[in-house]
Amino acid sequence: MSEFEIDWARERRTGIAEAVLCDGKSAAQIEAILASAGERPLLLTRLRPEAHASLSDKARHDLDYDPSSATAFHGRPATGLLPGPGIVCAGTSDLAIAREAARSLAFAGWQAPIIADVGVAGLWRLMARLDEIRGFSVVIVVAGMEGALFSVLSGLVDAPVIAVPTSIGYGVATGGRAALTGALASCAPGLVTVNIDNGFGAACAAVRILKKFGEARDPGAHP
Amino acid sequence: MSEFEIDWARERRTGIAEAVLCDGKSAAQIEAILASAGERPLLLTRLRPEAHASLSDKARHDLDYDPSSATAFHGRPATGLLPGPGIVCAGTSDLAIAREAARSLAFAGWQAPIIADVGVAGLWRLMARLDEIRGFSVVIVVAGMEGALFSVLSGLVDAPVIAVPTSIGYGVATGGRAALTGALASCAPGLVTVNIDNGFGAACAAVRILKKFGEARDPGAHP
Amino acid sequence: MSEFEIDWARERRTGIAEAVLCDGKSAAQIEAILASAGERPLLLTRLRPEAHASLSDKARHDLDYDPSSATAFHGRPATGLLPGPGIVCAGTSDLAIAREAARSLAFAGWQAPIIADVGVAGLWRLMARLDEIRGFSVVIVVAGMEGALFSVLSGLVDAPVIAVPTSIGYGVATGGRAALTGALASCAPGLVTVNIDNGFGAACAAVRILKKFGEARDPGAHP
Amino acid sequence: MSEFEIDWARERRTGIAEAVLCDGKSAAQIEAILASAGERPLLLTRLRPEAHASLSDKARHDLDYDPSSATAFHGRPATGLLPGPGIVCAGTSDLAIAREAARSLAFAGWQAPIIADVGVAGLWRLMARLDEIRGFSVVIVVAGMEGALFSVLSGLVDAPVIAVPTSIGYGVATGGRAALTGALASCAPGLVTVNIDNGFGAACAAVRILKKFGEARDPGAHP
Amino acid sequence: MSEFEIDWARERRTGIAEAVLCDGKSAAQIEAILASAGERPLLLTRLRPEAHASLSDKARHDLDYDPSSATAFHGRPATGLLPGPGIVCAGTSDLAIAREAARSLAFAGWQAPIIADVGVAGLWRLMARLDEIRGFSVVIVVAGMEGALFSVLSGLVDAPVIAVPTSIGYGVATGGRAALTGALASCAPGLVTVNIDNGFGAACAAVRILKKFGEARDPGAHP
Amino acid sequence: MSEFEIDWARERRTGIAEAVLCDGKSAAQIEAILASAGERPLLLTRLRPEAHASLSDKARHDLDYDPSSATAFHGRPATGLLPGPGIVCAGTSDLAIAREAARSLAFAGWQAPIIADVGVAGLWRLMARLDEIRGFSVVIVVAGMEGALFSVLSGLVDAPVIAVPTSIGYGVATGGRAALTGALASCAPGLVTVNIDNGFGAACAAVRILKKFGEARDPGAHP
Amino acid sequence: MSEFEIDWARERRTGIAEAVLCDGKSAAQIEAILASAGERPLLLTRLRPEAHASLSDKARHDLDYDPSSATAFHGRPATGLLPGPGIVCAGTSDLAIAREAARSLAFAGWQAPIIADVGVAGLWRLMARLDEIRGFSVVIVVAGMEGALFSVLSGLVDAPVIAVPTSIGYGVATGGRAALTGALASCAPGLVTVNIDNGFGAACAAVRILKKFGEARDPGAHP
Amino acid sequence: MSEFEIDWARERRTGIAEAVLCDGKSAAQIEAILASAGERPLLLTRLRPEAHASLSDKARHDLDYDPSSATAFHGRPATGLLPGPGIVCAGTSDLAIAREAARSLAFAGWQAPIIADVGVAGLWRLMARLDEIRGFSVVIVVAGMEGALFSVLSGLVDAPVIAVPTSIGYGVATGGRAALTGALASCAPGLVTVNIDNGFGAACAAVRILKKFGEARDPGAHP
Repeated sequence: MSEFEIDWARERRTGIAEAVLCDGKSAAQIEAILASAGERPLLLTRLRPEAHASLSDKARHDLDYDPSSATAFHGRPATGLLPGPGIVCAGTSDLAIAREAARSLAFAGWQAPIIADVGVAGLWRLMARLDEIRGFSVVIVVAGMEGALFSVLSGLVDAPVIAVPTSIGYGVATGGRAALTGALASCAPGLVTVNIDNGFGAACAAVRILKKFGEARDPGAHP
Repeated sequence: MSEFEIDWARERRTGIAEAVLCDGKSAAQIEAILASAGERPLLLTRLRPEAHASLSDKARHDLDYDPSSATAFHGRPATGLLPGPGIVCAGTSDLAIAREAARSLAFAGWQAPIIADVGVAGLWRLMARLDEIRGFSVVIVVAGMEGALFSVLSGLVDAPVIAVPTSIGYGVATGGRAALTGALASCAPGLVTVNIDNGFGAACAAVRILKKFGEARDPGAHP
Repeated sequence: MSEFEIDWARERRTGIAEAVLCDGKSAAQIEAILASAGERPLLLTRLRPEAHASLSDKARHDLDYDPSSATAFHGRPATGLLPGPGIVCAGTSDLAIAREAARSLAFAGWQAPIIADVGVAGLWRLMARLDEIRGFSVVIVVAGMEGALFSVLSGLVDAPVIAVPTSIGYGVATGGRAALTGALASCAPGLVTVNIDNGFGAACAAVRILKKFGEARDPGAHP
Repeated sequence: MSEFEIDWARERRTGIAEAVLCDGKSAAQIEAILASAGERPLLLTRLRPEAHASLSDKARHDLDYDPSSATAFHGRPATGLLPGPGIVCAGTSDLAIAREAARSLAFAGWQAPIIADVGVAGLWRLMARLDEIRGFSVVIVVAGMEGALFSVLSGLVDAPVIAVPTSIGYGVATGGRAALTGALASCAPGLVTVNIDNGFGAACAAVRILKKFGEARDPGAHP
Repeated sequence: MSEFEIDWARERRTGIAEAVLCDGKSAAQIEAILASAGERPLLLTRLRPEAHASLSDKARHDLDYDPSSATAFHGRPATGLLPGPGIVCAGTSDLAIAREAARSLAFAGWQAPIIADVGVAGLWRLMARLDEIRGFSVVIVVAGMEGALFSVLSGLVDAPVIAVPTSIGYGVATGGRAALTGALASCAPGLVTVNIDNGFGAACAAVRILKKFGEARDPGAHP
Repeated sequence: MSEFEIDWARERRTGIAEAVLCDGKSAAQIEAILASAGERPLLLTRLRPEAHASLSDKARHDLDYDPSSATAFHGRPATGLLPGPGIVCAGTSDLAIAREAARSLAFAGWQAPIIADVGVAGLWRLMARLDEIRGFSVVIVVAGMEGALFSVLSGLVDAPVIAVPTSIGYGVATGGRAALTGALASCAPGLVTVNIDNGFGAACAAVRILKKFGEARDPGAHP
Repeated sequence: MSEFEIDWARERRTGIAEAVLCDGKSAAQIEAILASAGERPLLLTRLRPEAHASLSDKARHDLDYDPSSATAFHGRPATGLLPGPGIVCAGTSDLAIAREAARSLAFAGWQAPIIADVGVAGLWRLMARLDEIRGFSVVIVVAGMEGALFSVLSGLVDAPVIAVPTSIGYGVATGGRAALTGALASCAPGLVTVNIDNGFGAACAAVRILKKFGEARDPGAHP
Repeated sequence: MSEFEIDWARERRTGIAEAVLCDGKSAAQIEAILASAGERPLLLTRLRPEAHASLSDKARHDLDYDPSSATAFHGRPATGLLPGPGIVCAGTSDLAIAREAARSLAFAGWQAPIIADVGVAGLWRLMARLDEIRGFSVVIVVAGMEGALFSVLSGLVDAPVIAVPTSIGYGVATGGRAALTGALASCAPGLVTVNIDNGFGAACAAVRILKKFGEARDPGAHP
């Protein structure tokens, strides 16, 4: 029996197709997983450029790879996307994680615009784009440092807000614990959070909401 | 100017009425807040029985108090509730927090049944009630100890799942950090979490989803 | 030689009179310190109502005690105060610490108004009072939970801003670490912080600024 | 007197032959230990491929090295193995540690099959192999992330279950603390754990059980 | 449907009867659980004397309560016990947890002697009783402070050794983290551990070994 | 709309010009920010020599780069500086952070001398320069290890004292937590602190004081 | 066999008589230990006044109890003491621990004077008594908060210096971790430390030095 | 004034010559310090082989460098050493730190033998060399992992015992916190500790004892 047991039924069961976290896996392991996938769609996350470069030509040819988000699509083009959640991003350094969320949503069939550089140190930047943000039915907020943006934005919109703390920062913010704590201890009611740097997880949470409440996509069918 | 500046517009802005966290507030402060509220609805959370008992007769008379969840309603009867999220609860000791979530949802206009005692140490208990759980459009999961129920349930349902880690446990689980970590580090994609023991916050997150996606209630109007 | 060696020269050396932290001291120790003080002024902090009640009648008579801030003045009336820093306070539960800061400033000769209940979950409350806050030459901000108010306010005013994280909160916010981290990891440049619940320390920092930059008081002389 | 004092009597005293943890030791130190061993059997763990490559030809020739588990056998072939514990492994990234456990058991004389890729996010994968797992008299479970597999499996089998948390994961799971906490705080009674990534230690614990309870091997004698 | 869903099949499935952790449960909840149990055996742990005293006369009458271990037996006399594991205990203050383990074993049908006051600061005390300890087929070690006894004993016996770190200690040992770390980081191979103060869990781990390897008891049948 | 939204109004609003933290930003991102700046002044911090070397010739030409502080000035010469704060530095290893503070002050228009190598292990070194230090109206103290210098110096001067804990140290001091704790828990009243290694933040705090209290500079105008 | 196995040979083996840590022991346990001691000397530490009061009249009569240090002598009068180490104490709140050290030394036969209230916030207080402190051959330093006194004093004397961090403090200093870190990360070479609040341990360390280096006492013989 | 202010009077004041911690210092900084030293003796610690190699030929020529301890002597030959403390070392991986202690003692004039590989997992190894160890007037113990050797040895000898926890270990032992906790929480009275990996600090503590108690050396004079 193979050592790889892909959960192909996951999309039917939970609405979210199987994804492969590439950190900690060797090139040989990733290629074996791709081989076992055949034509079936698979999302690869945290596939660093070096790791991508170490794959075989065949494997690289089959993947739609985006280095800025370290994600790759296998077996499913990201076309015909529906309008999806808004992704609000505190700083330039948080963009890689914001893009992981956007790509994960694209893989699932939704187009998610990124509103960048709206950290609370210059509150007017957020205010200037508030109407735009209020137009989304789900909002993903990506922030590092102390994560004050999570609380501020949650107090300004009525949509579900999903926080993605990032590992951007130094000193007490090293590794993202400060931003995570900022999200969990928030004084703004109804804010939820995922793990540090987990843009993929936030996208999945948004997909659960969108699919359950009527904007569902036929898996694999966005033409 | 008063020291109390209740955010009466919050419900209009974010869909969630102002609530008062009573922990750390004196009886005098709570009564002053109630007085400033007048007829306007207000949810009180973490109002311990001793704190409730120390309020004036007048204040106690005006409140619909539930000791098992340590919550009180002011100025709004919880009647005419719509069917709402399901609340899944790992153990008997987690019930107080599950009830805080249920009462917060009732205050907002939704009836949320509690499915109790379905911890993963006896997996059949969860399996026996899985069809029932799959019937909810939003699921709140309340668990202490290591919080393994969060991951297991997220892998079995396609609805949005909101974890509420509780402070139930001892040793490394003291204070709820183990359960919180279990939710954040979960291998099940799309799980989101709130702070430890924050049943109210999970309810608010559910309300954001329900109101935004068409099952909205007219605030204050559930007859 | 006495076991108590009060640093009577501290005010001359650092601009700040000696203060006594009463937590962890017995009634006998506090009374011995007061006796050794004689007529000289002394500020007592963290003198809990029970501890105050356990002092002798004589000691209690000589003290100007304020239970809401748990502070007492010995040997110096707080009269003829100059206009001083503004104290901005996120929530009702943070008021005790805000008052410790205000009382410490009053002991040193400055009147410090408290702007309360302006947490960022309802940003309009802060905005409504921003002009008032911008009128202060030094701003002390007191907040618990995630401390997002520190970053937001620092981005809005040009005065020195001193954060006082409080131990208000539960779960990951227990004990004030979340608010402290929020202050330290803040994305707003120029914010400084003191220890959790250290309203006295923030007042001393403000006094250092005010005395050094020309609004100095003759110690003991505010008539 | 040599700086290396190998505990050759350990196998007689505790049932487990001396092993050498190679992390933090120089090539010269490892070779000196091998030289002092002579013909006596020795297990080397955490011998990274680079460290193995830096050994002399002679040393490399004498070792039975397995890069996927970073282990090497010296002076004892792993032949004639008895059927041993089952090793259950949550994800592909945990395989290196699972193999360290399997190789350590092989060195002691037992064959331990690995059941891989049965994480709880897709519970059916575990259920499909439950009968097989129930056939083992001792079960070692290897998992990273939140380690929910530890609790779920412990509730399903009656054999002794030994958890090996791995350092696989990111954010709050970085370094393996989340999985370790998941094992320690487990709601499933009778689960025991070893240190993070300590596949060797789990194997030793299994050997203690197997030797004490009648499936003992004559040390060094598996023909 | 009741809120209490006792896992009556647990003993058949995992070899260990259901137990109720009484910490965090109200007297009403405990009595409801006892009522639902009827004649079926149930072990109650962490039933503090005050909590026991607050139960009804009826409930107290039905329980075999031992205050020194804070445990109670319901529906099964602890008679006709087989010789079982040895419990080695570092200091007098660790005895309550050692007794929790002994009582849990008695409930399952085994007699487990306690060897007390053999901490490593006076190594001769341990050495004096080493032959006796080597006579047990499973050894449970209970220690607080730095837990050095775990490593020392593991190096001296060949039986399975299960560590129970206790919360005895102060300063860096407060809450038992130092002893737990001492068990996990032990240099002695094959040591396993349970959560801090989890004497019950260690007993369950021993029961798994004893039942699986031929010294099994017919559940409920020790006459 | 661009992904970079520089807060050009920040200097007018808070007295401090926008700065760019280069850690975690790619060369392409830094160049895009510089391009969007045009002639407007910008401070770059944490621009490591390797990162600086990877910029285009054009970008490097436009920057006044100082490798010892890892800072660069864009669009504003640091000339005509006013006498500013004193920077007191415990050890040679803390100099890089002390220089980040000095360069940030120079960018804002103040000359800040560094008093180096005055750690408390040799107290006479500090005493020898105390008169000089007492001449500054604001003092920035930079120290790693246990940060005892923060407390000692705060007790000796009456100026505002801003602590900058550094990540210099090993063992329990790794990452700067020990020094940070030393600043926060200080027994010296009125000490404030910024995040670990945040020389820039301390400079900004000093600028807030200096600008607010009459030694203000016309932004951009120091000729 | 008794559960209490006092290590009567400890004084001969290590120079330090057996002591009993009373925290966590019941009155019955303490009395049983005293009974087993008979005439032999025993030091009791952390015997809180309430615990002392709960002992039998007989037990209390036999003890030389000092509430300010929570210590009691059994079977050995503290008379004919030799001049011993100096104990330097930062603040009034640290006195209880300083006295535990002094009483432990008296039990072993040395008189140890306490130099109190010499915290570094007012450095002159320490300097005023430096000659006196330099006269001791061993110095024990007791301090809470950030523990800066440890470093400062170590840099000023050439005797062995033993730090005792205390749990005095709040916020980040809660529980004594800040002071402990201050001792461990100290920039002053040759400083050693014991656990938080461990005045007894520091006394024992001093006794080891004094006995080994010629100022030894005949155990039990100080007349 | 130079940025380097070597504390040349330290040896006279505290008995210990100035040492330079090279971690975190550039080659230029180290050479500048050496230049300012001239003929005066200086000990360099943590001078990694790469850092040593990057020094100028001149600097390297003047240094007596030992790569296995990462120390270098400048200006003082280590000849004519007196018999000094014993250094007991748990495992091969701890030898680098043990050697740092031995070299630091040699620089100060004492010869300190290393007793290696006596970890408690094989207690007989320690017992076999106990008489030798009991012959030293001061004992330094170097151990990583859980540090159980600290407690065991302290209970067996009457000399002062100084623990040096090392960063050897993985999982919960990563970075040395487990060993440090083992030393601080030890049940053996009179044990003292220094920071993780601080072999130099333990040597200095031993020197303080040896110099104060009559085995003093004339600094710089060991011929």
